[in-house]
Amino acid sequence: MNRKIRMGMVGGSKDAFIGEVHRMAANLDGEIELVCGAFSSSAEKSKKTGEQLYLDQDRVYGSYEEMITAEAALPEDVRMDFVAIVTPNHVHHDPAALALKHGFHVMIDKPLAFTLEEAKDLQQLVEKSGLLFGVTHTYTGYPMVKQARHMISNGDIGKVRKVYVEYPQGWLTFPQEKSGNKQAEWRTDPARSGKSGCMGDIGTHAENMVEFMTGLQITRLCAQLNIVVPGRPIDDDGAVLLEFDNGATGVLTASQIAAGEENDLKIRVYGEKGGIEWSHYDPNTLLLKWQGKPMQTLRTGGDRDLAPVAMKNLRLPAGHPEGYLEAFANLYKNFAHQIKARMTDTAPDPDLLDVPTVTDGVRGMNFIEKVVESSEKGAVWVNFD
Amino acid sequence: MNRKIRMGMVGGSKDAFIGEVHRMAANLDGEIELVCGAFSSSAEKSKKTGEQLYLDQDRVYGSYEEMITAEAALPEDVRMDFVAIVTPNHVHHDPAALALKHGFHVMIDKPLAFTLEEAKDLQQLVEKSGLLFGVTHTYTGYPMVKQARHMISNGDIGKVRKVYVEYPQGWLTFPQEKSGNKQAEWRTDPARSGKSGCMGDIGTHAENMVEFMTGLQITRLCAQLNIVVPGRPIDDDGAVLLEFDNGATGVLTASQIAAGEENDLKIRVYGEKGGIEWSHYDPNTLLLKWQGKPMQTLRTGGDRDLAPVAMKNLRLPAGHPEGYLEAFANLYKNFAHQIKARMTDTAPDPDLLDVPTVTDGVRGMNFIEKVVESSEKGAVWVNFD
Amino acid sequence: MNRKIRMGMVGGSKDAFIGEVHRMAANLDGEIELVCGAFSSSAEKSKKTGEQLYLDQDRVYGSYEEMITAEAALPEDVRMDFVAIVTPNHVHHDPAALALKHGFHVMIDKPLAFTLEEAKDLQQLVEKSGLLFGVTHTYTGYPMVKQARHMISNGDIGKVRKVYVEYPQGWLTFPQEKSGNKQAEWRTDPARSGKSGCMGDIGTHAENMVEFMTGLQITRLCAQLNIVVPGRPIDDDGAVLLEFDNGATGVLTASQIAAGEENDLKIRVYGEKGGIEWSHYDPNTLLLKWQGKPMQTLRTGGDRDLAPVAMKNLRLPAGHPEGYLEAFANLYKNFAHQIKARMTDTAPDPDLLDVPTVTDGVRGMNFIEKVVESSEKGAVWVNFD
Amino acid sequence: MNRKIRMGMVGGSKDAFIGEVHRMAANLDGEIELVCGAFSSSAEKSKKTGEQLYLDQDRVYGSYEEMITAEAALPEDVRMDFVAIVTPNHVHHDPAALALKHGFHVMIDKPLAFTLEEAKDLQQLVEKSGLLFGVTHTYTGYPMVKQARHMISNGDIGKVRKVYVEYPQGWLTFPQEKSGNKQAEWRTDPARSGKSGCMGDIGTHAENMVEFMTGLQITRLCAQLNIVVPGRPIDDDGAVLLEFDNGATGVLTASQIAAGEENDLKIRVYGEKGGIEWSHYDPNTLLLKWQGKPMQTLRTGGDRDLAPVAMKNLRLPAGHPEGYLEAFANLYKNFAHQIKARMTDTAPDPDLLDVPTVTDGVRGMNFIEKVVESSEKGAVWVNFD
Repeated sequence: MNRKIRMGMVGGSKDAFIGEVHRMAANLDGEIELVCGAFSSSAEKSKKTGEQLYLDQDRVYGSYEEMITAEAALPEDVRMDFVAIVTPNHVHHDPAALALKHGFHVMIDKPLAFTLEEAKDLQQLVEKSGLLFGVTHTYTGYPMVKQARHMISNGDIGKVRKVYVEYPQGWLTFPQEKSGNKQAEWRTDPARSGKSGCMGDIGTHAENMVEFMTGLQITRLCAQLNIVVPGRPIDDDGAVLLEFDNGATGVLTASQIAAGEENDLKIRVYGEKGGIEWSHYDPNTLLLKWQGKPMQTLRTGGDRDLAPVAMKNLRLPAGHPEGYLEAFANLYKNFAHQIKARMTDTAPDPDLLDVPTVTDGVRGMNFIEKVVESSEKGAVWVNFD
Repeated sequence: MNRKIRMGMVGGSKDAFIGEVHRMAANLDGEIELVCGAFSSSAEKSKKTGEQLYLDQDRVYGSYEEMITAEAALPEDVRMDFVAIVTPNHVHHDPAALALKHGFHVMIDKPLAFTLEEAKDLQQLVEKSGLLFGVTHTYTGYPMVKQARHMISNGDIGKVRKVYVEYPQGWLTFPQEKSGNKQAEWRTDPARSGKSGCMGDIGTHAENMVEFMTGLQITRLCAQLNIVVPGRPIDDDGAVLLEFDNGATGVLTASQIAAGEENDLKIRVYGEKGGIEWSHYDPNTLLLKWQGKPMQTLRTGGDRDLAPVAMKNLRLPAGHPEGYLEAFANLYKNFAHQIKARMTDTAPDPDLLDVPTVTDGVRGMNFIEKVVESSEKGAVWVNFD
Repeated sequence: MNRKIRMGMVGGSKDAFIGEVHRMAANLDGEIELVCGAFSSSAEKSKKTGEQLYLDQDRVYGSYEEMITAEAALPEDVRMDFVAIVTPNHVHHDPAALALKHGFHVMIDKPLAFTLEEAKDLQQLVEKSGLLFGVTHTYTGYPMVKQARHMISNGDIGKVRKVYVEYPQGWLTFPQEKSGNKQAEWRTDPARSGKSGCMGDIGTHAENMVEFMTGLQITRLCAQLNIVVPGRPIDDDGAVLLEFDNGATGVLTASQIAAGEENDLKIRVYGEKGGIEWSHYDPNTLLLKWQGKPMQTLRTGGDRDLAPVAMKNLRLPAGHPEGYLEAFANLYKNFAHQIKARMTDTAPDPDLLDVPTVTDGVRGMNFIEKVVESSEKGAVWVNFD
Repeated sequence: MNRKIRMGMVGGSKDAFIGEVHRMAANLDGEIELVCGAFSSSAEKSKKTGEQLYLDQDRVYGSYEEMITAEAALPEDVRMDFVAIVTPNHVHHDPAALALKHGFHVMIDKPLAFTLEEAKDLQQLVEKSGLLFGVTHTYTGYPMVKQARHMISNGDIGKVRKVYVEYPQGWLTFPQEKSGNKQAEWRTDPARSGKSGCMGDIGTHAENMVEFMTGLQITRLCAQLNIVVPGRPIDDDGAVLLEFDNGATGVLTASQIAAGEENDLKIRVYGEKGGIEWSHYDPNTLLLKWQGKPMQTLRTGGDRDLAPVAMKNLRLPAGHPEGYLEAFANLYKNFAHQIKARMTDTAPDPDLLDVPTVTDGVRGMNFIEKVVESSEKGAVWVNFD
């Protein structure tokens, strides 16, 4: 089998932001080929997008149901290998479930679903089907996040004691949802976003980052969610105190009303021996802090002594910045690698297996559930599970 | 009256850290003269320090009681004008009270006292005496902190919505108190520090910074204090959720076990229109963040358009960094200015009046009281007053 | 015509660095399709690379001559539209000339050629043929470089007075060329690199950046080139004093022996009213410096007020870093756009026309010529033209 | 002898910038006492300044001649120990010479004199008298500059190969000398500044920094000086190519028309094994760069493993920034230490001997001489000696 992996897409018409991001990420390494799509609930819009993407018009569909059933009926050497689902949250579960039922692997945007129940249903379907299922918690794709994870797991900073993770954004400082910003509209609409706004959108990234990087699991939390901009029906800011299964504690903050902030997910982990800091502002850098000794700056780039899991997710030598799309592309590249390994019945590279799974997605949905519960009860402590 | 203001000192023998800092701060601008001291509970040590400081040996005393009574008996044109108290927390109240009772102004290190009760007693004594009383929350002395306070008060970023303040240190990552570090010893000893370690030492700086810069007052809080290093009798880490009197919320973190961190007090304040960020790492810079518009970097230095309250607390042109001692010196310089204004019966410059007062000190002690109460009850919400 | 633009490649076997970079850049936006290649002077190696790239084996060629003639013989709706040449410098001219003679547009790595004479020959061929010809001075592809160019051209900082451009690298600190590093081997070999090493490789990037960003042209220069690592036959370090056609002066430094440096091309331009700074370390940021007023930080991201030429070369919202591959992809995307405009006989978008041309390439070769001449004469001043 | 060292001052009336800086620096550590001064060529202004400084009016003099002769006539246990000369350059030599002739040590602002001849004359007087003579090249007072010097001297980065030093300022971007800025007036006036403006004022700091930190000596140079602002009679910008006595090369740039720049002296030194970077913007940090290994960040603060020469010039623990005044104070403190060692006939601490000397001052004046000569001849190479 010497061919590209074939992708179909649900959602992602040309005027949506995230669909184009998924496509660029899938394109980058030349390992994946977009072969079909149901890009919009409007058949016309879908057709238009397909044309702009130079797709065979026969394989541009008017709905995801149509796409999944039609593709399933195509010969094996033609039909798509997996589906990428890039719709708003309330249209996650159904296409994902249908794809799984028809035997397609699934890559899906985060958060996993609209409700925790939907998420758990998908988890069962994945387990039953044995298919591959990835969730695009993009930040896990950064080589330096993988490096940090590796070092913490390796005990380099000792037992983890304290974690700070923050995700400040400012884009909802003003009521953007009332001035025609499509993404602001659905993100602040509980009927499309789910029961949390800020925490659902970016708090889940922060939660996933903490657990991914540290290997710890949240056991209890105390959350203060806020609606800061008057009239907004859903949280646009929040802070969460965390407890972890090894006894460490943490603080997670996320905000969409931090005026002037862009998208600076940042995590700091302190252990018995040292600290690690990673920031999305400068993602090719990892700071290693040692009490009483000079801080070290690890940088991406081939000639540095990084772990294989970081090196295999790098494309460029030192001093050539890789960014968000490369991190995103790592998810797709590794997912494609896993699919290909299945197809060829070979063992996948263990360094390419860390694409976030349906289980991570369920933890994210549970996080939403619990922070809302805690906050509604007056910012009290609740158990994570 | 054309003379320097005369200072006596309680505590601060040559081998203590903070006493020397106070002296350098008082020296810098040539407006204050150290004339006497009771530098140690050991008369011999006090004598030695006095000699090293080139003091007249007649005015080096064996105890603060001796100093205060002896100085009070000296002629007015000889005796000290104010007392600087730089002892550990459990020796704050008594010398301060005695000084006030003998008519001396007082400058005292933070936190104000050993207990809230002591603090309130000092507050009453200050009110009754009408004397000047300063608390060295040093960070308020930075020009850019004053600039931020001025801008927020002026409405430049609109109504404040969210505050993050953090104070990470790593110096107690290891059990320093067991290896002969004097400062670690008393800071982690409840008999000398008071009921909180980390929160008492640096949490109070963070609390003071928030209220100083924003002009808001904390109304409720929920605190999770931790003893991270086994065997330590007192908190070395903590996080606090905050509510303010204008409805804004905040997060305050302080840690002494954040391995590799130095002393990076940092505050970010977000309002309806913009955000302000100040960090002790780069204290001559103030970041102004505007949603959808370029960030502006304000810098100390004479030719920039800063507020008078910032300009009057600067000594150097742009690009000549001023640091911790200059900030500390601002407290002393302004305190001396206030004393001189009294002596000469002139109006003090309103831009030099913002030295933290006994009232700020009482709020700091109340903060300690409340975070400990909250934490002991299981990190529940408690009212600040 | 609704199809992708078709690319053939000369050079770039899987084990070479820069070929893969070109392919990823061409892949990213889904506008270009690799259809054929002569990836190596070894036919076997070429075949292997073609297979790894999932190419039709019929269109994997054993030499560029074979490829160009064979493709030219294919029907118009099948054959490649342009050739990407990614070989070492001494194999630039001949394939480029052949491609032009057969009517193919050309995208070529920098520096343009092995000698100035070759470069001028290519310039004539381009002019005669009327074909499109791009040179991958990648750094011009960064949105913030385009923004700076736009602002300077617009007079925002006033008449340019002073330029500093620097390009420090450390990768040749040790004699890498003697320990099996293929790239170090040819880069330090005058028979493959040309008459300059450091200045030819990265000095030309710096020279191109200066002229691209400021719109000025170098008129005179004084260059001190050095061979720092003993035994190396070619410069690995140098500094150049510059004079420009508007009377401004500048300093250009480039080094491959700046131990510990990565690849931090940085340029600072000062005008009568303000200064502009861009650094490859943080390429999504542009610093605007104003004498006596706060510095402004411009950032990539859709909601900021950037010039159209910057906005059209961006893919992501604020805070989502784009890097080297995205800058490289901008060159390919814009080149493809220009090709498509020709094919469809439509006017190209004027904001997508700034891909470096053969003329820029000739100036780069002239720069090499002149710095070597100046240095050999004892670092004296020589005219640029 | 247990007393402070006694200082007299020439120049430095309250409205001048640098005199106050010298006084704060001398005050900081409580080791020096200002006892007399001739603060201005106007006796009235001098008197006024003396009053503001709380000096005994008998020791405020109308001219430096008066001061030096009168003080020399006072009893040894009263008269000043040294003179600080803080006047513009054209009033450096005469008071310094007179002080030396009367047996007073001298601390003088840079550059050493108005002409090279004057400088050499002072050098002879110093040698003949055997007195102490310090030149306030302030930047050498920074602990991290001393640390870098120590490490380079120790061979930590191997033999030095390349040096970049830059000193960008923007304060003369506009013709400030025509709008009442006193300092701009004399700095741009050859009758008071000497034959160079920018290079004399800040180029000499850069030159001194290079030689101080690396231990190398400049042997040849090629300088391009510019008058950028029309009508200015003296250089306000320049660049210099350097050769050193060990074969290394360097680039020195200095500008006063780099709009928006403050005062960011920055030096980068690359050796066979690693690189060192120090910037005045963040003076408590020293970057150690290692090819292929993580960069290390050295920071001031007591618990880090710094050289004694750095530790002894520090006052505060990690994370408490020290700035320009502390660096300046190190010069005074160490100078006072040397004076006291002489007085008490004890050996001075070898770590406190690195205050720049008259020899350094002569090299600075020679630098001015040579860059002007080179530039006037058309930016040609000239020997340093």
